[in-house]
Amino acid sequence: MKISELAATTGVSVATLKYYLREGVLPPGRALTRTSAEYGEEHVERVRLVRALTGIGGLSLATTRRVLEEIAQPGTSRTDVMGAAQRALVGAEYVPDPGDGGALEPSSRARTWLAGRGWRVHPEDPVIDELDAAWEACEAAALGVDEERMDAYAQAVLEVAAVDLASVPATPGGAVRQVVLGTVLVDRVLLLLRRLAQQHLAMGEGE
Amino acid sequence: MKISELAATTGVSVATLKYYLREGVLPPGRALTRTSAEYGEEHVERVRLVRALTGIGGLSLATTRRVLEEIAQPGTSRTDVMGAAQRALVGAEYVPDPGDGGALEPSSRARTWLAGRGWRVHPEDPVIDELDAAWEACEAAALGVDEERMDAYAQAVLEVAAVDLASVPATPGGAVRQVVLGTVLVDRVLLLLRRLAQQHLAMGEGE
Repeated sequence: MKISELAATTGVSVATLKYYLREGVLPPGRALTRTSAEYGEEHVERVRLVRALTGIGGLSLATTRRVLEEIAQPGTSRTDVMGAAQRALVGAEYVPDPGDGGALEPSSRARTWLAGRGWRVHPEDPVIDELDAAWEACEAAALGVDEERMDAYAQAVLEVAAVDLASVPATPGGAVRQVVLGTVLVDRVLLLLRRLAQQHLAMGEGE
Repeated sequence: MKISELAATTGVSVATLKYYLREGVLPPGRALTRTSAEYGEEHVERVRLVRALTGIGGLSLATTRRVLEEIAQPGTSRTDVMGAAQRALVGAEYVPDPGDGGALEPSSRARTWLAGRGWRVHPEDPVIDELDAAWEACEAAALGVDEERMDAYAQAVLEVAAVDLASVPATPGGAVRQVVLGTVLVDRVLLLLRRLAQQHLAMGEGE
């Protein structure tokens, strides 16, 4: 299909599609002449993915490009895809080699706490550094988020992750889509549910 | 203290403090002369709150102002503060009167589901509309987030909310701070924990 048809199918303007092409989040079509190209179903799928990530997902186009690049690596297993998507979403530059994992060293509060829980996560994963920073911000704000409260949060989040993982399909293509979109879109669902759950419990308290 | 001392105490430049004053996120000091004003401890506290919300919280200055306005209403109970902070954070314009609550009507998928769970939330709360939109985005992305999966998420999030609520102090001032900062800063902690929990469970799966 032509770019005008791609626009009609996806509901995204030709100007925006050209912007996506320039920014590298949409791969070029197959050149027909010097000024026109042919687009396929994979382009429709990609435009929808970009819209979901930048729209409800709230990602910048730069982050979207990084996520798309990360998950484009060949031979990515379900675990690899999940890790790559996570790191890209956190905005980390450094991607640890999946093979060089070791034990968590108690070199930071989050690492010590994670090691104590026996969580198997890559010790150099930048997500842990982000967790340290976020925890420190809670401490600086005197929110009283201590190890005990983190344990309670971790227990609840493990249940969320178990549901997440059970829903990831075994096919690589499907897994990429599910992990990236599931991470971004379901984050929003969980955040909103937390608000409503707080309200529900607070209402009960007021009676 | 003078504005230069407020800057030294908070580590925020005088230029930024003047910007906060212009944007209305920092209330004016007590005028001493035509060009100088006196600032107090409440200004130090406010600057720190603004920094936390715009920094690790990732809020825009416009959202920060809306949050601060919402929670400045007098006579706010713990439930009211929570609701006001939530609505401001979601970016909703409409704030329902806390008194006009009624039963949830099955007028949308989220309302039907929430009513089925017996959750006591304000039926006109814009957070519900946001949940409808987020759920719809999951559906559009074919993520398979059905009622059953929502039930599983809700169960886990209720545990999170119970921990949240238990940590809110009974004093109004403390409650405002705790709810606003707790909502924004702990959202980030939970999001990061979800990534690590996924990784932990996926690692176990790969063995």
